[in-house]
Formats: sequence, C-alpha cells, structure tokens
Amino acid sequence: MALLRKINSKAQATINTGFGVNPSDYGGRFVNKSGKANIEKSGIGFFEKMSLYHTLLTLPTWEFFLIIFIFFIVINLLFAVVYLWIGVNHLGGLVSNSAMEKFAEAFFFSCQTFTTVGYGRINPIGFATSTLAACEALIGLLSFAIVTGLFYGRFSKPKAYLRFSENALLAPYKDITAIMMRVAPFKNATLVDAEAKVTIGIVVEEDGKTANKFFQLPLEYNNVNALTLSWTIVHPITETSPFYNFTKEDFENTTGEILVYLKAFDDMFSNTVVTRTSYTFKEIIIGAKFKPMYMRSSEGNKTILHMDKLNSYIPADVSYSFKEKNTG
Amino acid sequence: MALLRKINSKAQATINTGFGVNPSDYGGRFVNKSGKANIEKSGIGFFEKMSLYHTLLTLPTWEFFLIIFIFFIVINLLFAVVYLWIGVNHLGGLVSNSAMEKFAEAFFFSCQTFTTVGYGRINPIGFATSTLAACEALIGLLSFAIVTGLFYGRFSKPKAYLRFSENALLAPYKDITAIMMRVAPFKNATLVDAEAKVTIGIVVEEDGKTANKFFQLPLEYNNVNALTLSWTIVHPITETSPFYNFTKEDFENTTGEILVYLKAFDDMFSNTVVTRTSYTFKEIIIGAKFKPMYMRSSEGNKTILHMDKLNSYIPADVSYSFKEKNTG
Amino acid sequence: MALLRKINSKAQATINTGFGVNPSDYGGRFVNKSGKANIEKSGIGFFEKMSLYHTLLTLPTWEFFLIIFIFFIVINLLFAVVYLWIGVNHLGGLVSNSAMEKFAEAFFFSCQTFTTVGYGRINPIGFATSTLAACEALIGLLSFAIVTGLFYGRFSKPKAYLRFSENALLAPYKDITAIMMRVAPFKNATLVDAEAKVTIGIVVEEDGKTANKFFQLPLEYNNVNALTLSWTIVHPITETSPFYNFTKEDFENTTGEILVYLKAFDDMFSNTVVTRTSYTFKEIIIGAKFKPMYMRSSEGNKTILHMDKLNSYIPADVSYSFKEKNTG
Amino acid sequence: MALLRKINSKAQATINTGFGVNPSDYGGRFVNKSGKANIEKSGIGFFEKMSLYHTLLTLPTWEFFLIIFIFFIVINLLFAVVYLWIGVNHLGGLVSNSAMEKFAEAFFFSCQTFTTVGYGRINPIGFATSTLAACEALIGLLSFAIVTGLFYGRFSKPKAYLRFSENALLAPYKDITAIMMRVAPFKNATLVDAEAKVTIGIVVEEDGKTANKFFQLPLEYNNVNALTLSWTIVHPITETSPFYNFTKEDFENTTGEILVYLKAFDDMFSNTVVTRTSYTFKEIIIGAKFKPMYMRSSEGNKTILHMDKLNSYIPADVSYSFKEKNTG
Repeated sequence: MALLRKINSKAQATINTGFGVNPSDYGGRFVNKSGKANIEKSGIGFFEKMSLYHTLLTLPTWEFFLIIFIFFIVINLLFAVVYLWIGVNHLGGLVSNSAMEKFAEAFFFSCQTFTTVGYGRINPIGFATSTLAACEALIGLLSFAIVTGLFYGRFSKPKAYLRFSENALLAPYKDITAIMMRVAPFKNATLVDAEAKVTIGIVVEEDGKTANKFFQLPLEYNNVNALTLSWTIVHPITETSPFYNFTKEDFENTTGEILVYLKAFDDMFSNTVVTRTSYTFKEIIIGAKFKPMYMRSSEGNKTILHMDKLNSYIPADVSYSFKEKNTG
Repeated sequence: MALLRKINSKAQATINTGFGVNPSDYGGRFVNKSGKANIEKSGIGFFEKMSLYHTLLTLPTWEFFLIIFIFFIVINLLFAVVYLWIGVNHLGGLVSNSAMEKFAEAFFFSCQTFTTVGYGRINPIGFATSTLAACEALIGLLSFAIVTGLFYGRFSKPKAYLRFSENALLAPYKDITAIMMRVAPFKNATLVDAEAKVTIGIVVEEDGKTANKFFQLPLEYNNVNALTLSWTIVHPITETSPFYNFTKEDFENTTGEILVYLKAFDDMFSNTVVTRTSYTFKEIIIGAKFKPMYMRSSEGNKTILHMDKLNSYIPADVSYSFKEKNTG
Repeated sequence: MALLRKINSKAQATINTGFGVNPSDYGGRFVNKSGKANIEKSGIGFFEKMSLYHTLLTLPTWEFFLIIFIFFIVINLLFAVVYLWIGVNHLGGLVSNSAMEKFAEAFFFSCQTFTTVGYGRINPIGFATSTLAACEALIGLLSFAIVTGLFYGRFSKPKAYLRFSENALLAPYKDITAIMMRVAPFKNATLVDAEAKVTIGIVVEEDGKTANKFFQLPLEYNNVNALTLSWTIVHPITETSPFYNFTKEDFENTTGEILVYLKAFDDMFSNTVVTRTSYTFKEIIIGAKFKPMYMRSSEGNKTILHMDKLNSYIPADVSYSFKEKNTG
Repeated sequence: MALLRKINSKAQATINTGFGVNPSDYGGRFVNKSGKANIEKSGIGFFEKMSLYHTLLTLPTWEFFLIIFIFFIVINLLFAVVYLWIGVNHLGGLVSNSAMEKFAEAFFFSCQTFTTVGYGRINPIGFATSTLAACEALIGLLSFAIVTGLFYGRFSKPKAYLRFSENALLAPYKDITAIMMRVAPFKNATLVDAEAKVTIGIVVEEDGKTANKFFQLPLEYNNVNALTLSWTIVHPITETSPFYNFTKEDFENTTGEILVYLKAFDDMFSNTVVTRTSYTFKEIIIGAKFKPMYMRSSEGNKTILHMDKLNSYIPADVSYSFKEKNTG
C-alpha cells in the first residue's frame, strides 16, 4: 500500500518550510542534529559565502586561541625578516653576535613592538626601521582591537543552552499514543515564553513520482511560560495526525524526519534564542516512555534536574495503537 | 473540607508553567524571591551547567575587581618564578642583591610586561627569557581584551530596574476584595508596554494523592502603557478567581505561591527586560491596603515617587469577604 | 459649563497609562518635551536611583571627554603624591633639581605608567614604588577597558533619530477638523513598521473633585510601513473624539496634555527604537495647517526632505468646527 | 485608455507607505536597488543629518583601514610639529643631525607615544614636552578605544545576508500568471520566520492630475518558516491584483516600482534583520520563469544551492494572460 494513502488525509500539509518539495533535491537529511540546514552553497566565493566573524565566534575556544597564537608568531616572523632586510644596524641595543641570534633579537623586537611593550633596550634607528616599527605598533593595536571585539562577540553571542533527547519516542499517551521529545535547559539561564513548532518531512510517491511532503504536527502545548525543568514536547497521534494510520513498519521503512524548532526569551542574554534539531524516523523509539528526570532534593527545599537522564526511557507497550483504523 | 473543593471550579487551571505537577518534586518554593527558579541541576559538569561569562557579569562589583586583582597577582607570581628558573642573569638592568630582591624584580618585570608598560630598565636577554616575555605580553593583552569585554558586558546587560513590594495584600477592592502587589521602577529608565502575568501554584489533595495545581489569575489590567510611577497589580477575587471561596484560614494553612512575571520594553537599554518574583501564601497580608507612594512636589511642578513607601500599607477590614458563598 | 460634560461621552477613556488619576499628584506636566516622564524619585540613594553607566552614555560628547580628562589629571596627581611620599629617590633617571620639578617628574612618570607608555627613562626602583607602579598600570588598563566599553555604549545606543514639530495644530481635515502633529527622521536611518499611540490627559472636575482623565485618541493611521519622509499624525475630531464639543476657549483654558508615543524598527541599529513627546494644550495652534516639507529635487531624480520646515504652518480657518453640536 | 482605469478596482490601495502621494515629489525611484529610500535631507547640518558612527560601520573595509591610517599619519605629523616647536632639545636620546632627521625623530617619538610603545630611547624632558606626551598617550588610548568600538560595531552589525534576483519575472503560474522575485541567503546564517511584504507604487492620472498610487500585492506565501534555500516570492495575478488588466504595453510604458520588504530572525546575529529592494517596471521580464537553483549533491547527502543561478531564467509564454478580461 502506497505510503501517501497511509498518511492521514486530515493531516494539515504545510508548504512554506523553506525546503524544496522535489525529493531529488533531498540530500538525506533536511536538518542536521545540530540544527543547521543540510545545505551547501556554490557559485559564490569562499569569503562571500561565509561570515569570517561568525565563524571565529563559533570556533571551539582552544582553536580560537591557537589561531591567535599562530597569527602572533607568523606576523612577528614576517616583521623580523623585514627588519633584518632593512639592516640589523638600524636596531640599537643589540647584544647578539651570530646571525641566528640577530634574527632572534629582531623577532623579539618585533614582538615588543607589536604588543606595545617597547622595553626600549632594542630600539629603531633611522627612517625605514622607525617607520616600520610605527606601522607595526599600529597594526598590533588594531589587531588587539579586533581581538577584543571577537572576545566580546564570543561571550555575548546569544545561544539557546538547551539539550534535546537523542531519540524521539512513540509512547503511550492517555488512550492513544504520542510522539514525544524531551528538551531541558542545562545552564543557569531562565528561558521564558518558550514556543515549539514541530514539522515532519516525508518522501512519498504521488501520481507515480516521489515528492517531499511536509506536515505540521499539532502539539499538546505549543508553549510553556518558563522552561525551568524539562519539557516533554508531545504530539498526540489523534485523528488529525499524519501518523494516524502508521504501523510499526511504516515508521521503520519510511524516509522521513521530524523537524523541531524552539524559540524562547533568555533572560541571561535578554534576547530571543532559537534552536533547531531533527529526528529521522530511524531515531524514533517505537514503544518507550521517558523516565522522570527531576525530583525533590534530599533536603526537601529544592528541585533537582538530572541532566544525565534526559534521554532515559523504559519500554512501554504501544502495540494497541497499530490496529486498523478507518479514515477518510 | 478538602482544599481542592475550596478552589473555585470556575478558575482557569493552567498547566504549561514549566513546573512539574507532582508535589513530591516541590522543593518548598517554585521561584525564589529574586525570581530565579528554585532548581538545581545534576548529572552535568560544573562548567557545563554554568555560564562563566554570565556568572562574572552578575558578580557584585567589588568581587569582580577582587577576582581581577587576584588573577593579576597570581599570574605575575607564576611568571616571576619561571623567569627566575630560566636564570636571573637573563634579565638585564637588575639593581638588586639579595635573592628576595631578585624575586621582587622578576615579579615587577613580569608586571611591567603583562601590562605592556615595559619601562625597559629591566629587559629580557637571551632566547628563553625573551620568548617568555613575548608570550606574557600577548597573554596580558588578551587578558585585557577579555576584561574589556566583561566590563562592557556588565554595563550593558539589560536588567529590569524594578522593585516589588515585599508582601502581597488581600485588600478591599470595590465591593469585593483583591490580591494586590505593587511594583515600581527605581532607576532613571522609562519602561513602556509593561505586561504582567500572575499564576498561583497550590499543593492540593486530589483522588487521595497530592498534586501541584496551577491557576492563572485574571488581572484588573494586564498591561500599562508606561511604567513611570508605581503599578499596583490587582487580581480581583471575583467568581472566576481560584480564591473565591477561601477563608482567612485557607490563606494561612495552604502551601502555595503567587508567581509574578513582568515584561517591559526599557528605553534605556532599548531592549525587552523581564523580571519575576514570588509570594508564598505566608507573605500575603490579610486585610491591608497600600498607602499612596507618589504625590506632587512642594514646588508643584513634578510628581515625586517615594521608593521607600513601596511596601507601606495600613490595615483594612476584609472580613466581609469570608462569608459563605455559593459556587458551582 | 463643566469641562467634563464637554468631553465627548463617546470618547474612549483609558486608565492604564502609567500616570495617576489624582490631579493633586499632577506636577504641571506628565511628560517633558524630551519624552522623559516628569517624575522625581525619593526615599532611595542617589546611586541607586540613577544608572551611572547610562548617565555617562547620554552626556554631551564634550562633557564626556572633559570627565575623562579631569579623571586622568586627578588620578595622576594622586599617584604623583604617593610616589613622592614613598621617596623620590626610588624613581631612577630623574633629571630635575627643584622640588617643583621633582613633583612634575613624578606626575609625568605616573602618566607614563597609567597610559602604559613606560618610556623607562624614569623607572621605579625598590619594592614600594615598583608595587605602586604595577598597581597603577593595572588601574590604567582597567580604566581604558571601561572607557572602551563606554565609547562603544555611546556609539551603539539605539536612539530614535526623530524630530517632532514643536506645535500640534488644530487643522482643517476633510469636512471636519483634526489635531495634527508632524514627525520626521533626521538621520540616514530607515525606520520601518512605525507605530504611534496618542493619549490625552485632562484635569477635570468630577462629582465636585478634580481628577486626571486619560483618553486614547483614534488616529487616521496608527502605523506606516516606512518612516522615510515626514509623517503627519492625524487625530480627526469625529463624533468619538474627546474634543468633539470643544470650543476655542476650551482648548485655551483647559489644563491638559497630548502624549505621543512612537515605536519603530530602525535598520541602522537593527533594533526597536521608542520615542515620546508631549504637547500641552497651550502648544496647540488653533487654526493652522502644515506646509509641505518635501519635494522633488531640481534634477528630478530624488525627493528632498526639508527638515527646517518641520514646524512651518500657515493659518487656516477652523471656526466652522466650533459650532454647537449635539452629542449623547 | 487611462492607466487608472486599467488598475483593477478590486485591488487594495494602501496609503501608509511612508512615501508621498504627490507625483511631483517623486524623484524617479522610491527605493534604490540597495534598499535605501531615494531621499535627501536638507535644512539641517551635515553632521546632524548623518550618523558618523553608522557611516563608519558601513564603509568598505579598505576605506575604513585607509581612514585609520591617514588619521594616524596626520595626528602624528601634528604632534611632531608641536614637539619641534617646543624645542627639539626637550627630547632626550636623539641621534639625528639634520633638521629633516630631527623632524623624523620627533615624528617617530610621537608615533611611539601615540601607540604607547614608548621605547624610551627618545623621551620627553621638561614640563611642556612631558605634558604634551602625556596628552598624546591619553589621546592615543582613547583613539584605540574608539577604534575597538568601531571594529566591534562593524563585526556585530546585523545584516540580512540575502540576495535578490536582479529582475522580477512575469511568469506562468497555474492557469494564470504571477510576478515572481527570487531571494536567497548567501552566508552561513539561518534565517527563520521570514516575512515578505510587497507593494507597488504607480504614477497615475486621476481627475486630470497625476498622483502616486500604492497597492499592497497579495502573495502566495507571506512567510516561510526557514529561509534555507531560495524563496520565490510570488504575487499571483488574480482578480484582486492591481495588474489584472495590464497588457504587455502597460508594463512597459507605466512609471512604477515594485517595493519588496523582507524581515527575518537571523540566528547568527540572534536579531531581527530587515532588507528592502525595488524593481522598476523596466526591470520586470515579461514572459520568463526562474530555473531551479538547488539540487542534490553528487554524493546524495546534501542539497547544493547555486547562488550564481539566482537570476537565471528561461523564456516562457504568458501571452494568454493579456487577453481582454471583464472587471467591475
């Protein structure tokens, strides 16, 4: 039986997802686990298609420091070469003898100029060397102005400090079943006015050719006032769900993806933060329910949120939901 | 009589508060007086569960300066040790004799390098010491780049400069009574489009087991155009209020909490600011009304807002409101 | 005839303005021309009621530089005194003879340390002086970190670069009259999604005592897509206007104020900007209309907006509007 | 036949566009291709009508660096002149002989002071020179504080990294035709909740005089959840479109302009970004359709977006749409 017929005709299709409907464009995943769209741009220059600043903001800390350190070494080596080329006799106060030591002193003079330490034992004499040193000090200060901006940018960049469960569950829910995903904040931020939007993308056969179909999934709650504990996002499989007629096999054999989009106001950044993730149908556990992840502290005066239990679940019978139903 | 029956059945229950419904998770308070959720996270690393940057932003000013000062001392002591270890003869220009004085001079050389003052009387000679000094100058500049970012972050962090009265009052209101809380801005900011949301959380017995129940409290006004003077947030205890049937004893004996959430646009930060607070039922004064806190200036050309009167109230009779009523 | 009866009973009163209703609190003006509420706070410390950072942001540029300069002089004088007190012999490299010159050299050494120039001719010798110099360099760097934050804060603070006409006009409008105010952007920003809200506050006599009454004024347009040219905010005096029955004398004799609030998204700051102003009834010109303030450039390829014509108006007859009308 | 009669009477006129209705004000284009309104301000000082800070933010990078470099040269030349004027004998440590060399050394001393390198070989002696040097170091540090702010401002300024097709197309659409414009993100940002608003401005003759008329164009979709691939903004020419009765000649001969406004939340900047563009009627290609610009990668695991195909189109017959229709 064709998949398209299995998709509940009462489900609300949605088209303005920003993804194409032609499955020949579908590259295996609409959205990566990290929330980035699985898209590459071509026909545009490398520096035009990326934002250097934002790439530097999102680098791991150690890589960021490494880049600064390498830049510092390289630029001082370059300047040292030019100082030697102008003539080592234009650097006053040298105490070195060998060529190697002279190069080292030129390099250290360059470092002292670039960082504006300027001890002055080694100091520039003559027009060319003095000019170069003035330029180097300017470049040094501008570099540190840029680095200051980068540091602040890295610190202050609003991020949704939210973690999603690795799996979505098909879990019992009241008399029916529901798709459940769990999300929890892991930093000392308070996220208020959180709002979730869940869409599925499915590759179906229609009129003899395949197409990407998108459906918005109605949720138990679209928003919570404050995302302080964990939030289990629940899509109940009611008559209006696209999954209403799905069997266990349909979940296992269909190429599809649940796209989760979550927006909240973060009072730490005083800014709206946005995060996305996706669950392919292979990442849905059929027949399981989440274990509670928060409880009262032993002293009884706090609630403890166990972040390590975010993805803990126990098996739960959902076979009753796969019986034949009648839909239009 | 069970508390649950006392709660007005016409009151609108709310569930998406971000807090759990299981009272065994309730740790004595949902939200602390400061507005932070009374929650602790576990199963996650210390540095993962806190944001170092934001912790530094919210430290008291003197602690922040103390941390900078201690960091400055410690890092220079470390560098001084390494300079001595490499050899004090690689520092030119020393005038000291004793080992103690030599260490002091190494320490001061380190300070002069770290801050990039670089007087130059003491200056590095030789490869190892010069390299270390270059690294220290780099580290110094990066440290000050970070500190610059932290200062700006501390300055510019949007905060709701709002103070809430310490108590909520059960006050006379037209022919009935109302729960009243007062809030006032205490800085020279203008807060516009202010919006309040008030929820109560109550621990009730239901079907033989206790549960946290949440109810949204309808307000006289949910928003004000400009929060320039004080704003008394008023929840009139009408037929649709969860408190409609409450007696004085119910207020005193129930474990419950009024959660207040306030959002406004602050034209000083040009940003939305959010603040929260909570009143446990023990913090409700039964039978009192707020004294006015603003009046015309003696010159007659200004309005004076007396911030010290934010929590001033006088007793007021509300006993008429505790008579038996009939509700569905 | 009492003013209250003159106020159109069909006008929509509004209460959540953030201002009090008791006229004995009314200090002559709700909102100053600059848009700041005409309110003073008391019962709270000076530094608690103002934000030092935001006060520094809004200072005129020359005052801001003057404060920096004075701070620079004062802190270096203080350090110079301490250097002399420790002993001028702990400063190496002095070339001065008189006490006055010695003080000057201590002062210049302090300047060179504070700014981290550190020429080194004058340099610290001994523990106390070296420690003080290290502290001064640290304080200098922290000061410049703070100043950097202040500069960026001053630059980047979103401001609504909008100017309002100095007067509101009672102008002819179709067959009736209208209150008109004009606003225009004066910088190279593009303000989109601009939205205006106009309220009047009037002191009226009600039941034998006076009270502040507020009414929202319905506008011809509450918003414009883009505020690129001037925008004339128009409140037509229709049957639902509070001014419907007003005579020329009522406008002249009533103590009242038109409060204008304007919000827009500024694409220069990529932020929402908000501005307010107010017109007392004395600032309303009875019988006038605005002259156009933009026209095609002489080359015909641009529109020219004449900012100097923002408040230009010509007399216009509105006497027909003061005839007796019947309202409910 | 007058153009106004050709404009569909069912089309929804819009007036609050921020542009004037008097065509004698129309300077050939409402909005430039770059999205800036085609307006000039007069009657206001040069520095009052532009924001120096924002002008520096939007300068090309090389111009920005050039300005810094020229400022650096000029300010040091000025200081060099003053140092010489005070007297070259107040600079200690000079090694030069000729007047030219003395000026050079004064210039380099100024550079070393301004950048706070302060080698110290050349150092100030005497009150006047020392004072000037202290001021210069202060000015230098303030300049770099300002430059730091400018760099961060340049980096962090939210920009909509979106490119529009150069032409709008009149393309076949279902059984009718539609105006289509294509937009695509070209950087590694994720734009969510994108919303478009399209307006046309047309110069028409009404009652014997010309006027600017504006109409909002209804779109197939006003918004997309995520702007990850290209988005073709489609205005179907239905019965309610102002273009319903337009012939090929009307498109070619009318003076008019399609104004496009696009707003989205950019998760790279965590900010709302806004962009605008315009298409004059001459920039509409009559009878063409866009070629697809994204497809699956050859490895099959990604979608490739070809930015260079943004404006690629192929001819398409739309002559069927120019037949006579009946409208009210």
